[in-house]
Amino acid sequence: MTTTSPEAQRYADLRVALDVTSDAVDLLLRHRSVRRFRPDEVTDAQLRTLVAAAQSAPTSSNLQPWSVVAVRDPESKARLAHLAADQRFVAENGLLLVWVADLGRARRLAERHGTDVAAADYLETTLIAFIDTALAAQNAVVAAESLGLGTVFVGAMRNHPERVAAELALPPHTVAAFGLAVGVPDPDEPAGIKPRLPQEAVLHHERYDAPTADAELPGYDRRLAAYGAPYGLSGDWTTRVLARLRGPESMAGRHLLREVLQVRGLPSR
Amino acid sequence: MTTTSPEAQRYADLRVALDVTSDAVDLLLRHRSVRRFRPDEVTDAQLRTLVAAAQSAPTSSNLQPWSVVAVRDPESKARLAHLAADQRFVAENGLLLVWVADLGRARRLAERHGTDVAAADYLETTLIAFIDTALAAQNAVVAAESLGLGTVFVGAMRNHPERVAAELALPPHTVAAFGLAVGVPDPDEPAGIKPRLPQEAVLHHERYDAPTADAELPGYDRRLAAYGAPYGLSGDWTTRVLARLRGPESMAGRHLLREVLQVRGLPSR
Repeated sequence: MTTTSPEAQRYADLRVALDVTSDAVDLLLRHRSVRRFRPDEVTDAQLRTLVAAAQSAPTSSNLQPWSVVAVRDPESKARLAHLAADQRFVAENGLLLVWVADLGRARRLAERHGTDVAAADYLETTLIAFIDTALAAQNAVVAAESLGLGTVFVGAMRNHPERVAAELALPPHTVAAFGLAVGVPDPDEPAGIKPRLPQEAVLHHERYDAPTADAELPGYDRRLAAYGAPYGLSGDWTTRVLARLRGPESMAGRHLLREVLQVRGLPSR
Repeated sequence: MTTTSPEAQRYADLRVALDVTSDAVDLLLRHRSVRRFRPDEVTDAQLRTLVAAAQSAPTSSNLQPWSVVAVRDPESKARLAHLAADQRFVAENGLLLVWVADLGRARRLAERHGTDVAAADYLETTLIAFIDTALAAQNAVVAAESLGLGTVFVGAMRNHPERVAAELALPPHTVAAFGLAVGVPDPDEPAGIKPRLPQEAVLHHERYDAPTADAELPGYDRRLAAYGAPYGLSGDWTTRVLARLRGPESMAGRHLLREVLQVRGLPSR
């Protein structure tokens, strides 16, 4: 596999070749989620670099509506791992970053200035907070990988947002958007570059063309099933997507998120 | 300024120095939004690289709940620019990417398989779509900058989501999350690295500490006002945040987003 280009691996298709690239693009294409870490610490210096990269991401109207809590305490990490579907790697890695959609900072400013920020009552503003948190966290992922670290997002941090908030003493108008486990990758973890949908399935020109895009899905189903087999991952993409989205019972409690956000002070008016 | 480190510029604070860095981190730290482009085309080869980078970003359960529409047609871009608060650079640059939160692909799969995907009715799933769209788009931004291109996000693509959907023939269960203008930067555009909040205002250790974080805000207000003055940007951060979030009248129509999402087939149950 080492002689196969990263883009051919990314699409599980040897015919794919990019004509334009860069060292940074090569880094991005080689991304994989890491769920097994060596015991090495992530240093404070590395952490500061990750956060500086995160803060360099674009943010709507320079609102910067996010914060990040760095958790190293083993007992706190164990409790958070339990809340996040008992995913062992959340507790085991050196550093857990909890990315917080944060409208609390603006709300506190408004309170101190005796003004109102009624726009923060609307779903649009909550969405901005989540989008900007994601843009920032993705920059941290890229920075981490460029330093030889590995990461994996932990969406299960939204399974029990109120208990996560209590663990991290999150103030009103803030909520954990997701976690990010960061550590030195265990080179023995069996994992490759996960194939994605063909570009033709996601990239449209001028107008969205569903029939052309969807015609790519059966081929992707076959390629993803072939990729997953050696890792013990059975089933094609269609099967997994339909199972994941079946209904509230497939959501690990997150079907309550709208109500929880309301309680946390991020209403979705 | 060229002898000032990117991190010192990013925080408008000469005392800030990162002990750990990389070429990719340097690229991330030097990010700036570009709103003036040269007439050069963004090539199809560059576009393919941007999309491959985007697809390499993490995505929850490999759902890949996004699509992107590449718009080059001048008349279509002009109409989209008009819908996006008449921002001239939306029409002027060579390439407008409209990033689409896309639960339509999964809904169409479910329909073809005669199954239900009731999880897609919930705010949580819509949030996943927006988060994953943001992670992907940020990778495209990083890739673009590594190729010497410049970008700027266009959140105003959410001012009139139904009209944007009509322009791009977006199918049900999809919505434009944001635009991204991409082009060759005009070197004459006056712009620097925008200072962000001090790390101490956004990075917490173990538990969220609002008093310590918020103590950094007055200093940031001064630094941002000083940075903006030569560009004709008046006012400190606090003033701008409070104005931006004042209420529905400060939201350019986006206070209706929840209802619009419902109409587009992305309900927030």
